[in-house]
Amino acid sequence: MCFLLSQMASANIRYGEGVTREIGMDLHNMGAQNVCLMTDTNLSGLPPVRAVLDSLVQHGVKYKCYNNVRVEPTDSSFKEAINFAKKEDFDVYVAVGGGSVIDTCKAANLYASHPEADFLDFVNAPIGKGKPITGTLKPLIAVPTTAGTGSETTGVAIFDYEPLKAKTGIANRALRPVLGIVDPLHTLHMPQRVAANSGFDVLCHALESYTALPYSQRSPCPSNPLLRPAYQGSNPISDVWARHALHFVAKYMKRAVRNPDDIEARSSMHLASVFAGIGFGNAGVHLCHGMSYPIAGNVKTFKAKDYNVDHPIVPHGLSVVLTSPAVFAFTASMCPERHLEYLFMGIMVQAVGKHLNCVCCVGTDIRNVKRADAGRILAETLRNFLFDLEVEDGLSAIGYNQQDVPDLVKGTIPQERVTKLSPRSHTEEDLSELFIASMKLY
Amino acid sequence: MCFLLSQMASANIRYGEGVTREIGMDLHNMGAQNVCLMTDTNLSGLPPVRAVLDSLVQHGVKYKCYNNVRVEPTDSSFKEAINFAKKEDFDVYVAVGGGSVIDTCKAANLYASHPEADFLDFVNAPIGKGKPITGTLKPLIAVPTTAGTGSETTGVAIFDYEPLKAKTGIANRALRPVLGIVDPLHTLHMPQRVAANSGFDVLCHALESYTALPYSQRSPCPSNPLLRPAYQGSNPISDVWARHALHFVAKYMKRAVRNPDDIEARSSMHLASVFAGIGFGNAGVHLCHGMSYPIAGNVKTFKAKDYNVDHPIVPHGLSVVLTSPAVFAFTASMCPERHLEYLFMGIMVQAVGKHLNCVCCVGTDIRNVKRADAGRILAETLRNFLFDLEVEDGLSAIGYNQQDVPDLVKGTIPQERVTKLSPRSHTEEDLSELFIASMKLY
Repeated sequence: MCFLLSQMASANIRYGEGVTREIGMDLHNMGAQNVCLMTDTNLSGLPPVRAVLDSLVQHGVKYKCYNNVRVEPTDSSFKEAINFAKKEDFDVYVAVGGGSVIDTCKAANLYASHPEADFLDFVNAPIGKGKPITGTLKPLIAVPTTAGTGSETTGVAIFDYEPLKAKTGIANRALRPVLGIVDPLHTLHMPQRVAANSGFDVLCHALESYTALPYSQRSPCPSNPLLRPAYQGSNPISDVWARHALHFVAKYMKRAVRNPDDIEARSSMHLASVFAGIGFGNAGVHLCHGMSYPIAGNVKTFKAKDYNVDHPIVPHGLSVVLTSPAVFAFTASMCPERHLEYLFMGIMVQAVGKHLNCVCCVGTDIRNVKRADAGRILAETLRNFLFDLEVEDGLSAIGYNQQDVPDLVKGTIPQERVTKLSPRSHTEEDLSELFIASMKLY
Repeated sequence: MCFLLSQMASANIRYGEGVTREIGMDLHNMGAQNVCLMTDTNLSGLPPVRAVLDSLVQHGVKYKCYNNVRVEPTDSSFKEAINFAKKEDFDVYVAVGGGSVIDTCKAANLYASHPEADFLDFVNAPIGKGKPITGTLKPLIAVPTTAGTGSETTGVAIFDYEPLKAKTGIANRALRPVLGIVDPLHTLHMPQRVAANSGFDVLCHALESYTALPYSQRSPCPSNPLLRPAYQGSNPISDVWARHALHFVAKYMKRAVRNPDDIEARSSMHLASVFAGIGFGNAGVHLCHGMSYPIAGNVKTFKAKDYNVDHPIVPHGLSVVLTSPAVFAFTASMCPERHLEYLFMGIMVQAVGKHLNCVCCVGTDIRNVKRADAGRILAETLRNFLFDLEVEDGLSAIGYNQQDVPDLVKGTIPQERVTKLSPRSHTEEDLSELFIASMKLY
């Protein structure tokens, strides 16, 4: 028997309203002489970036700013940021933004620290070479402005690989930020659909990592602890994070989407994003994420509301959540109890609501649920949840039809790094059926 | 307003049956040339130490072993271990044992890395000078063999300061192990009372950190993030760990104490110890721990069952739990919901027991509890729990009487590092009353 392990993967996280003001002091403490600040054009005039700049100026920290990060980055946009970083001798990186900014900054740091490397060297196999990272990266501080990515806690950087029209990434603990500054004030600036889509990313991070293949069933067992993959299957420590993230999503997500001024709800979703990030950064995700990469990569003309960009875009959280009802109906038979957890969260907060002052937002009554019905009931609950949050009605509503399914399946095949963590094994035919079942939701 | 922060304090934890076998490879990967292995005489012939030695030999790792750690260490026993460490040029430390061994090893590493320092330099003020740690320590790998201390996750080393007959410690993130190897097979060797007392430590870590003063109410606000104390008050991240630890204690502790072969229960308590350790290492503990130090330090002739030592001893977990009914009755009014959490855990697992296959071990019905009764009811539940686990009947049963109370209070005063985290402020008179109320439990 092969004994596998759970490793706690977590960056330092500092949480609190207004904590961004300390970043200049942190950089001063680190002895930073030349800071690379990355953000995107939309954010560069908004309060989160201003708060960082004010603190840098106040503490006399020298920096250069790159504000040209692409929302939903590509290999080309990564390379542009890398070239910027290579031209300077930066000693600390600061990323202020959502997952796109943080991931781009991770890549810039990585390749500026490995100037001889070819771009595909560190990209996940089979698309890239998946080489181990041997050099030392500069410290990176992440200041997330969306409540979804969890990128401030992980060693993963995702981008759209244009030659294949599919997302892939770089996954290595060396990419993990040394500090995540989680300041809930920053999430007050998220437009409604950005709050919704990034919240769906949290929901799927938590549900996928909680239902991922258990660490004890993953094989092969690595011959050396150094070779253990970052995504190692669900385990008792990632479970802790996933369950708490689910609890918060059940309790706060609708409020956070509907009312940008509900600081309690938006703060809580920001924390849920951190919780889910630590969970999936340790356990991994599976089919919703694996299938999302071609959904985002093959986008035709769809432009999501509330995203101020000059190109068609299926936001990451949306591309992930649209297949979730079909995916969890498919995987539920392997661990029905875990698929009921999300519902269980609803019941739990109801049962003791009057003592703990909780409100249940999901509320399906699962006291009499049979294990065999777990998948169907979770799918139904997810569909109701998406409907209430006014999500597009399936893949057909974002421009796909049955003829696109072979391409979507083809784009999922290379995502083995995540899809192999599905608790249920699957064929290409299964993937086709999952895409077809996701064409319409309601 | 002063914004305070939550930092996630956590070592890497590797968990799994048999994972100890990898330690030789880890040391080899680290390039270790001269390892300091620390343990105690009881453990040195037992399977956990043998497993470590076998792995070291298999991977050709050179080491020297110090097996003279004192159970419930003192300043003298720390100094003996420090002298051992100073004589050699160790490049990695490995601690195999309970909290006493891990804490001693942390101190040996610290002072061997600061050979010019006086012993009191790094000891917590006001007993020591509480100086900041400026040098770099060698990496330390902790292999816990009890399920209680959580020392594998924290930057704290506790010892009995003989001149004052009270425990104190050294608290700094620099002491934190780089890796905790949590191998549940090791806990099968714990005698029954060791399992009980270390489990009580887990319970109090979780209850105290969950009820500690909230981080947002702690003052003064440090002027620089570097000056933030390790113990920073309860916060949403430490809460996650405390609640899960409580859940596990409620579900598994009685089974783990009563049946050493119940590997599910003993494994779960081992994990609960890690969870609670991360929680309190981040939030802090308060009165039970603060008051425990003089209870342990003033021991007269009491020798706890199942502890094979040549000196009187009140095991740490016992010294902590004996005041817990009185302490939580005293603090409950400040945050009644949090004091009901432990009971809530019982109800929660009952309510959905048939779906999640849980068994409730606490079981007080709190559905109709009034907030004002929270303290009384938690105290009653704790007394029942201790009675069921055959705990000595209060401080009088371990050799104390009313005349000792002034000394016990005197020994608590310098424990301000922890007692100031009590959610309710207190006078010396309050402390007297808490000790008196703890003389008899049943």
